[in-house]
Amino acid sequence: MRLRRRPGALEVLRERPGIVPQKPEQLRGQWTVDEPLHVELGTGKGRFLALMAEKYPTISFIGMEKMESVLSFAVERMEQQNNVCFIHGNVADIHDYFADGEVDRIYLNFTDPWPKNRHEKRRLTYPAFLNTYKEVLSSRGDIHLKTDNEDFFTYSLEQFSRSGYHFNNLTLDLHAHEPEENVRTEYEEKFAKRQQRIFRVEAYLPG
Amino acid sequence: MRLRRRPGALEVLRERPGIVPQKPEQLRGQWTVDEPLHVELGTGKGRFLALMAEKYPTISFIGMEKMESVLSFAVERMEQQNNVCFIHGNVADIHDYFADGEVDRIYLNFTDPWPKNRHEKRRLTYPAFLNTYKEVLSSRGDIHLKTDNEDFFTYSLEQFSRSGYHFNNLTLDLHAHEPEENVRTEYEEKFAKRQQRIFRVEAYLPG
Repeated sequence: MRLRRRPGALEVLRERPGIVPQKPEQLRGQWTVDEPLHVELGTGKGRFLALMAEKYPTISFIGMEKMESVLSFAVERMEQQNNVCFIHGNVADIHDYFADGEVDRIYLNFTDPWPKNRHEKRRLTYPAFLNTYKEVLSSRGDIHLKTDNEDFFTYSLEQFSRSGYHFNNLTLDLHAHEPEENVRTEYEEKFAKRQQRIFRVEAYLPG
Repeated sequence: MRLRRRPGALEVLRERPGIVPQKPEQLRGQWTVDEPLHVELGTGKGRFLALMAEKYPTISFIGMEKMESVLSFAVERMEQQNNVCFIHGNVADIHDYFADGEVDRIYLNFTDPWPKNRHEKRRLTYPAFLNTYKEVLSSRGDIHLKTDNEDFFTYSLEQFSRSGYHFNNLTLDLHAHEPEENVRTEYEEKFAKRQQRIFRVEAYLPG
């Protein structure tokens, strides 16, 4: 479900330059000193990022989100969390925000499956995106993808394979044997209640 | 279900040297003149191969099977089919029977999933097998895999990806939108009646 426009959302972002840098492209290549950098694309209201940031205080997390309404909730939720930043921007511009090899992990959690063929280019596992991720990912970097959408999942596996990614921990039913370290997103909680399958894969680039 | 030993099975094979060559390694590199060569590994009683051979008369099919009891049924069923041969042998020896690049397609239909970790090496998508298939497959060759076993399927996708195979037509529920050209194996018919999911992928080597 998409949130309606939230009045004052943009102000929420603008008033917190410490956590939502106004010119994130100026931080390119300098996001961290030596902590691992994990980026969630389409961070939404930020449940996943908030839980992860608390659980892993020595990792720096960045949430990218283009919709200011949902992002404003994530920002308010995490303004006291010192290992989190947000980028209010488009995934297509990710290389403007991160230098080559700067990102250690990308999370794609329940991103829009864009089921119609004519919208294929908007899927965040479209080949052009996968090639951009290759540029910003470090040599041991990987992409952790979760979705409830079967067609988006099989599409993503095909595209990952053709872009040279290899797979780890591929599962077609994450909650059947849920790993202890799994952190559930907002969507994931809903799907779990409906007993829907969650698909997951870790895609990495061979050394 | 495994078939008990069939009395006289070996004789059935030995008496039909035209369709079950006694020294198949001598045909290495000379199986066809210019027809495409498709090989099914673990061909069982041969329903799939029989239907395929009838449907595609200009393709040469070979069924490999190590168990003479089941193989004897396949042989009897297809002794009049002139585009089919059988190899009574082990998949591990596939390179003894086929020259580099001689095979255009390999079928892995409901092969034994060997679920125990200590039996991993017996799975027909174990890396050593995948590397051997690379040798015998032609440059546009591919592997068509079908299974009802979810863990074997995810294992196979991981291993394929790490061996450099790319994916086409990946589906997690083949019978939900069954392609017209799908030919069902014996096992597949049984699973279909029980409404079990059939997983399928085409794995190929990039040009």
